[in-house]
Amino acid sequence: MHLRPLNYARAHRQRFVAELIDFIRFPTVSAQPRHAEDVKNCAAWLAEHLRHIGVPQIQVFPTRGHPIVYAACVRAPALATVLIYGHYDVQPPDPLEEWRSPPFEPIVRGNELDGRGACDDKGQLFVHVKTIESYLRTTGKLPVNVKCLLEGEEEIGSPNLPLFIARHERMLAADVALMSDTRILAPDRPAINYAERGSLSLEVEVRGQRRDLHSGNFGGAVHNPLQALCELIAGLHDANGRIAIPGFYDRVREAGAGERAYMARTGPSDCEILRDATTEHAWGEHGYSLYERTTLRPALTVNGITGGYQGTGGKGVIPARAVAKLSFRLVHDQDPAEVEALFRRHLSRITPPAVRSTVRTLARARPALIDPRHPAIRAAVFAYRQSFGATPVFLRSGGTIPVVNAFQEILRIPTVLMGFALPDDGMHAPNEKFHLPNFFRGIETSFWFLDAISRLAARAAPYQLQDEGELSLSQTGRTFPREVAV
Amino acid sequence: MHLRPLNYARAHRQRFVAELIDFIRFPTVSAQPRHAEDVKNCAAWLAEHLRHIGVPQIQVFPTRGHPIVYAACVRAPALATVLIYGHYDVQPPDPLEEWRSPPFEPIVRGNELDGRGACDDKGQLFVHVKTIESYLRTTGKLPVNVKCLLEGEEEIGSPNLPLFIARHERMLAADVALMSDTRILAPDRPAINYAERGSLSLEVEVRGQRRDLHSGNFGGAVHNPLQALCELIAGLHDANGRIAIPGFYDRVREAGAGERAYMARTGPSDCEILRDATTEHAWGEHGYSLYERTTLRPALTVNGITGGYQGTGGKGVIPARAVAKLSFRLVHDQDPAEVEALFRRHLSRITPPAVRSTVRTLARARPALIDPRHPAIRAAVFAYRQSFGATPVFLRSGGTIPVVNAFQEILRIPTVLMGFALPDDGMHAPNEKFHLPNFFRGIETSFWFLDAISRLAARAAPYQLQDEGELSLSQTGRTFPREVAV
Repeated sequence: MHLRPLNYARAHRQRFVAELIDFIRFPTVSAQPRHAEDVKNCAAWLAEHLRHIGVPQIQVFPTRGHPIVYAACVRAPALATVLIYGHYDVQPPDPLEEWRSPPFEPIVRGNELDGRGACDDKGQLFVHVKTIESYLRTTGKLPVNVKCLLEGEEEIGSPNLPLFIARHERMLAADVALMSDTRILAPDRPAINYAERGSLSLEVEVRGQRRDLHSGNFGGAVHNPLQALCELIAGLHDANGRIAIPGFYDRVREAGAGERAYMARTGPSDCEILRDATTEHAWGEHGYSLYERTTLRPALTVNGITGGYQGTGGKGVIPARAVAKLSFRLVHDQDPAEVEALFRRHLSRITPPAVRSTVRTLARARPALIDPRHPAIRAAVFAYRQSFGATPVFLRSGGTIPVVNAFQEILRIPTVLMGFALPDDGMHAPNEKFHLPNFFRGIETSFWFLDAISRLAARAAPYQLQDEGELSLSQTGRTFPREVAV
Repeated sequence: MHLRPLNYARAHRQRFVAELIDFIRFPTVSAQPRHAEDVKNCAAWLAEHLRHIGVPQIQVFPTRGHPIVYAACVRAPALATVLIYGHYDVQPPDPLEEWRSPPFEPIVRGNELDGRGACDDKGQLFVHVKTIESYLRTTGKLPVNVKCLLEGEEEIGSPNLPLFIARHERMLAADVALMSDTRILAPDRPAINYAERGSLSLEVEVRGQRRDLHSGNFGGAVHNPLQALCELIAGLHDANGRIAIPGFYDRVREAGAGERAYMARTGPSDCEILRDATTEHAWGEHGYSLYERTTLRPALTVNGITGGYQGTGGKGVIPARAVAKLSFRLVHDQDPAEVEALFRRHLSRITPPAVRSTVRTLARARPALIDPRHPAIRAAVFAYRQSFGATPVFLRSGGTIPVVNAFQEILRIPTVLMGFALPDDGMHAPNEKFHLPNFFRGIETSFWFLDAISRLAARAAPYQLQDEGELSLSQTGRTFPREVAV
């Protein structure tokens, strides 16, 4: 076996971290227009870096939003092709005052690299970039064809990606997609995600009178859009933590007993989830574990509210308008467009006559499921065993990666969700970090995965498949979906 | 009669407006610490201006917050003494984007002077400054002793004024206080306020988990402080627009039939109030006119909410905390401290176990009532008739002027609330303005008021009192309070 790429990666860890730091320094906040230039500069940096490590084909595609970086090492049509996806944009760093150090001045603290995007997703994306480098700089070639699709709009719902994928279907054609943008259970407990929740992000605006009013002069005689907004939001859940929108649960598929038993055995306990959530108090739908509530069950979160005076002290004002940002997490077989229609109907029904409410759609993504018996998933199991020395568990994730759905629907390929982030890495939160040992193990996992895929395609079956994972068809029962054919 | 002061005021109108513009230019936002220096500079400007127009005694008193400007023309102990109160601080100008022109770059548009503080209260305060100048520059003296108490913290609830008044009781001793910080019904319909609502401003903070969480990973399993805050706020009113805090209405005094009939006859109609509020939809407590709802009845307003992500686009976050600013408007015989205790008890009872709520007190002020039969009120009626050619109506106001209460309780004097602002002048709102004809008439009203007080004190009874106002004891009935002895 040619282990030279592995040895190369081990020898250059320090430089890899330094390069990752450079990568994180770009404040690629895709949601904020004032960072558009930073996002563009980061795309150019990434393209140049790929060129520098020897990737032969690189192209930066402008979109209506932020650019897409495409890179390819296509050696021979007979080889299997892996499409590596990642995103170089990041979540807004607010609230800034809660960061230990500035979010875009990454810093190594022991085994942790602090910075916005350290794990979501710059660090995890960089795992594969460094794997490609390690192959190219030692053996001069990759064992499979590799295409990289690196976008700058994941954190705003990938608005331009589906169209891009549809338009470049041939360019992106592959056997399997590989993505590292998910979490594992602990540093030595790797995991493969086989389910993602869908999402629907909305902005609700409530307007009342045409201008802000003095609350002394008018308080008690006119409705308050901010109060009305609170009442509307309060009306979206019932007392049992269920979403109170008529018809909302009609298409929610119940999981089989086998899958629920597997989840109970392998997934995080309620205590672990609460510890990661830094709280002692569970909340939500009765009759489900917290792991189930965050993966098998849908959720509705108020992400932000703005209205009225927010400065120091008080101001006697009845604001003319108030805005809330809401996001649904959806599960099979919920359709974001259908849920949006239900929400709009419900909202217009419960909006009191003294105010007006309007809804703006920010993003929509369908839920996704991948059959754990797919050979590429088995390759991933093998790769994790080689690098982490442990069999990965199969996890449902509560998050949303819209592109997984696009790959499934447009390119008709499954996506291997091979995560390296830890539950306490603070994805989307202040003080986001990446556990550097996972960065290094991630590169080795990626190395073994590409190696396994090349043997699989050559029908060499070089690795053990017997106990590749504990979740099998018999356990999931007949309700477990087989969305991707083997 | 010496009408020379009146003629002087008429001859110098243009200069008076130019000086008022200089006064408004100081961004004296008392609620925002970054404007502390502006407030201080404005106090110095005001003191210098008073010295310049010939006021013999001027002193700027520092406080724990913003300075108090004191000025006095005390000629003889035998003369009546009028204590003129005004405030030179202003409301925050947010939302800035809704202003036609920058709030602190005042501009004259026809008969209107636009700018933050144009009427609340710099313009109305300046009315009396220019009256004093008009007397001093023509007759060389004022007809009564005049003391001016000009503060810089009214818009934050006058936190340091009561202590200042208590400590300077002798310096401030007077027969009556005069204040122009209220509204009249229309340019030719003057009004005297005989009631102010009290107020209680609070900040409610809800905290849940210790850090912001990814709503994909944790949505559905932990409570959301922002959602909990909405539910708490939604629980503060019942379906009929009444405040749902147990015991809240226990001390609310019902008005007599006579006063309600007077109010219905003289006060603004529902239509007028809705037009001023720029809305078509009334809201609030059933069984009361809108005028009554905003004056005779208490109210609770959500002034602002901050929580979660407020930038462009969306962010999948469960915020760790959310904050609301609330203010009560209170009526006789409600005690702000007692209402605060009721609120705190209610809030802790309805806060769900998964989150914690805390309450911070921002400001408290008792409601105030002044007997319309007080001789000083009759002097004001006379003054309005002379300047506006119309008999003022007696109005209840929904706003709060904490100092009226302090004058009543500490100095034991009534306050004449002699307003010149119009309903559409936009106090506290973007595009605040002052109707300049009212500025000029205000100066004449102030002139006649000081003149009438001087005659009253000399027992000269120079003006008609027969139909000085339509609101009399017989109309208000036995429930109408006589808080200030004649």
